[in-house]
Amino acid sequence: MTDAIRETAQSNAQDVVELAKRHLVQPWPTAGEVGAEARPLIRGGEGIYITDGAGKRLIDGPAGMWCVNAGHRREELASVMYEQAMLLSYNTPWYTMSEPSAVLAKRIADYAPGDLNHVFFTTGGSSAVESALRFMQFYNNVRGRPEKKLILSRGGAYHGSTYLSASLNGRPRDRDWMDGADDLVVKLSSPNPFRRPEGMSLAIFSNMLVAEFEETVSRIGADKIGAFIGEPIQASGGVIVPPDDYLPRIRKICRDNDILFIADEVVTAFGRLGHVFSSGEEFGLDPDIITFAKGVTSGYFPLGGMVVSERLLAELRRSNHPTAMYAHGLTYTSHPVGCAVALANLDLLEGGILAHAQAIAPYFQEQLRTLEELPLVGEVRGTGLMACVECVADRESKNPLELDTSVGMRIDAHCHELGLLVRPLINMCVMSPPLVITRDQIDDMVAILREGISRTMDDLRREGVWQG
Amino acid sequence: MTDAIRETAQSNAQDVVELAKRHLVQPWPTAGEVGAEARPLIRGGEGIYITDGAGKRLIDGPAGMWCVNAGHRREELASVMYEQAMLLSYNTPWYTMSEPSAVLAKRIADYAPGDLNHVFFTTGGSSAVESALRFMQFYNNVRGRPEKKLILSRGGAYHGSTYLSASLNGRPRDRDWMDGADDLVVKLSSPNPFRRPEGMSLAIFSNMLVAEFEETVSRIGADKIGAFIGEPIQASGGVIVPPDDYLPRIRKICRDNDILFIADEVVTAFGRLGHVFSSGEEFGLDPDIITFAKGVTSGYFPLGGMVVSERLLAELRRSNHPTAMYAHGLTYTSHPVGCAVALANLDLLEGGILAHAQAIAPYFQEQLRTLEELPLVGEVRGTGLMACVECVADRESKNPLELDTSVGMRIDAHCHELGLLVRPLINMCVMSPPLVITRDQIDDMVAILREGISRTMDDLRREGVWQG
Repeated sequence: MTDAIRETAQSNAQDVVELAKRHLVQPWPTAGEVGAEARPLIRGGEGIYITDGAGKRLIDGPAGMWCVNAGHRREELASVMYEQAMLLSYNTPWYTMSEPSAVLAKRIADYAPGDLNHVFFTTGGSSAVESALRFMQFYNNVRGRPEKKLILSRGGAYHGSTYLSASLNGRPRDRDWMDGADDLVVKLSSPNPFRRPEGMSLAIFSNMLVAEFEETVSRIGADKIGAFIGEPIQASGGVIVPPDDYLPRIRKICRDNDILFIADEVVTAFGRLGHVFSSGEEFGLDPDIITFAKGVTSGYFPLGGMVVSERLLAELRRSNHPTAMYAHGLTYTSHPVGCAVALANLDLLEGGILAHAQAIAPYFQEQLRTLEELPLVGEVRGTGLMACVECVADRESKNPLELDTSVGMRIDAHCHELGLLVRPLINMCVMSPPLVITRDQIDDMVAILREGISRTMDDLRREGVWQG
Repeated sequence: MTDAIRETAQSNAQDVVELAKRHLVQPWPTAGEVGAEARPLIRGGEGIYITDGAGKRLIDGPAGMWCVNAGHRREELASVMYEQAMLLSYNTPWYTMSEPSAVLAKRIADYAPGDLNHVFFTTGGSSAVESALRFMQFYNNVRGRPEKKLILSRGGAYHGSTYLSASLNGRPRDRDWMDGADDLVVKLSSPNPFRRPEGMSLAIFSNMLVAEFEETVSRIGADKIGAFIGEPIQASGGVIVPPDDYLPRIRKICRDNDILFIADEVVTAFGRLGHVFSSGEEFGLDPDIITFAKGVTSGYFPLGGMVVSERLLAELRRSNHPTAMYAHGLTYTSHPVGCAVALANLDLLEGGILAHAQAIAPYFQEQLRTLEELPLVGEVRGTGLMACVECVADRESKNPLELDTSVGMRIDAHCHELGLLVRPLINMCVMSPPLVITRDQIDDMVAILREGISRTMDDLRREGVWQG
């Protein structure tokens, strides 16, 4: 064990909390807590479990942040980091290239639908989305259409945390105090069936969404719109599964209007829905660009990227501006260690995890849906190994409860006590565990979540803020 | 050796080149080559050396991309990646925290100047700069000054490759075909003494730069300007070392006008100039925010971040909007493996590399300056272990040569042949080797560079495009 690891492993949990409060800025802090906040300490992980500062074992409900797909403590991933770092830890992608990056690009391209044959690597989802959007801008500049740059995004979307990628976000609260490139983005409705107008059929709801899309294109003009970007399933917006025919219809409108269709598969790729990519196999789509991150390395190493259509690159190569430069790239683009980890992770996915995820997903969804028996639960939804439990004040109004501490946070607190880390989102709990979860572990997870929700219902009744 | 490593190690170099041409998108490609280009293959590294696809050993002149500060194949860094990944490979920073992140925040804060006591982690330089700028926007929103958001940047600057960070860049060619947030950024002159008006003293040149800064603030209004961002030494702009008094004077104007001073130390921190941070120890500055990346992990793992002043956070905590949210953070913020690597890397820096870099830097600079004897060389400049050899058509005009293949690329090609990887920048060659370089290795490096430049001079004379 190296000194750095020993140093941290021997430290007292309370000391770590004090260090964090004094020196660590957490993501998404409030103004009142920025630079003065600690969060529950996690010290270890194995399989679907993580261990907190008190030594308590928890099921990792969100798989970190939808990313630890192959599970914690995979020797295959840890050892490849060591071995690649001892072989070649870094090379500049500006003037050189490495074998893992070329081999990984080929393997990823083989899984991508249609003619998406070319891969550009970044360090995560935000930079993947930035790369795709900056590529669209470059593509339209080279084609002599500098006015064709607007980006269509949607309510409930989450695409990243850099200035431009965050401008696409459509979740409540993300943009209240943050600036964005609002003149570059047009927002459409979230395809959220749970929130569709009362009494409307799914088919009519889908028609309504498509009509809004068409009306927007015709109002603004296709010559002003560069791209549509969408998560096939909106993830941190609350696992929004759109009506079946919605995405293919949007894809067709984009094709008809020369608008790039960017599928943001940062969450839905690399096994979360049982496939390496979901665009083709799950949704019958052939996007122009797919962005990915997270599951590509099971979160062990920051890696993301985009897969781009051969058609677009061929257009650029044939253009009248062969020396125009796509002046874009990160120091850690094509990082040899990240690419080697992703290759080993793909071996694991192909070696059984994809098949397991496909086999276990129906049981996962079925067991979670039993929670709809609880009166606080408005809906349990999802597909593959991603699901969301949405709580409501009552099932008729579907209103979320307005509370000082959100329902999600309250459920999470009880579940932590009981041995499960939840990903609370205002009034929702997202469940997306490591893909290696077994039937017995699903039973445990659902039992704990049931008890956590029940205790929360008791609290709310006692406080007199809810009668269910 | 795992399968993934074995797979790549056994592959034929030509096969890798073919895979890259068909599937890998390189950074900064031209429209004519995007998705159809291979670059020289690098297969291994050790110390200051890398090995190419033909087994040829090269001195890594740019240390990757100013990042492999501790050198290649450091067992201490490779093993900590393995060990931390086996302990805890990932935890979500949204709901939890890890020990390495809190311990690293404390160690970094201890090195930072002034009251810069709080650290936020990202995945590299671009996301560090995005974090700092989005923080400035949030800070001014919370303080009720939503109009105070313009960012002052400079010619020759390089701050990243996301939409907003790239908008700050001031190097030639970076923005010719790329969009940017031009309405958010105001550009000032590069403090480049080599390009100052002929006959002007350094003191007068500095006065001129400061006057331009003051005039800009007074013309636009300090109430409209949120931040100034600058690399203490402009790095990929060509190692621009400003006049001595320039940065402290700009810092004072910023303080007097309530403009945040952001020192972008992505290149200059973690040993490049012999210190962990250079703002204080080298330039006598106490910035409001320092951004860092690259050397923090010696490039083994994508990590970056910002160090923020306690004063700013205290203002936020005391604000009238305690629940306002700095809605910002990446999946890989505070990555436990990245933070563990950075801790081990700091051990290496403290254990001798910082002292070595300080001791060897004068010899490095002195030997490189002997290249000024060559008539193609207009200037050799730099400090610490960063330097730039700038080539000119003639020393009087100082004009760069306009050629089909740039002088830098030509020198690089000869040097590759001779055993040195150069970082060519149009008419410049940047030298920033791993900090562990010895006197003998510096002698080798300079001898190769001398021969590479000499051969380039012969080529240019033979082609009749230069007479020196």
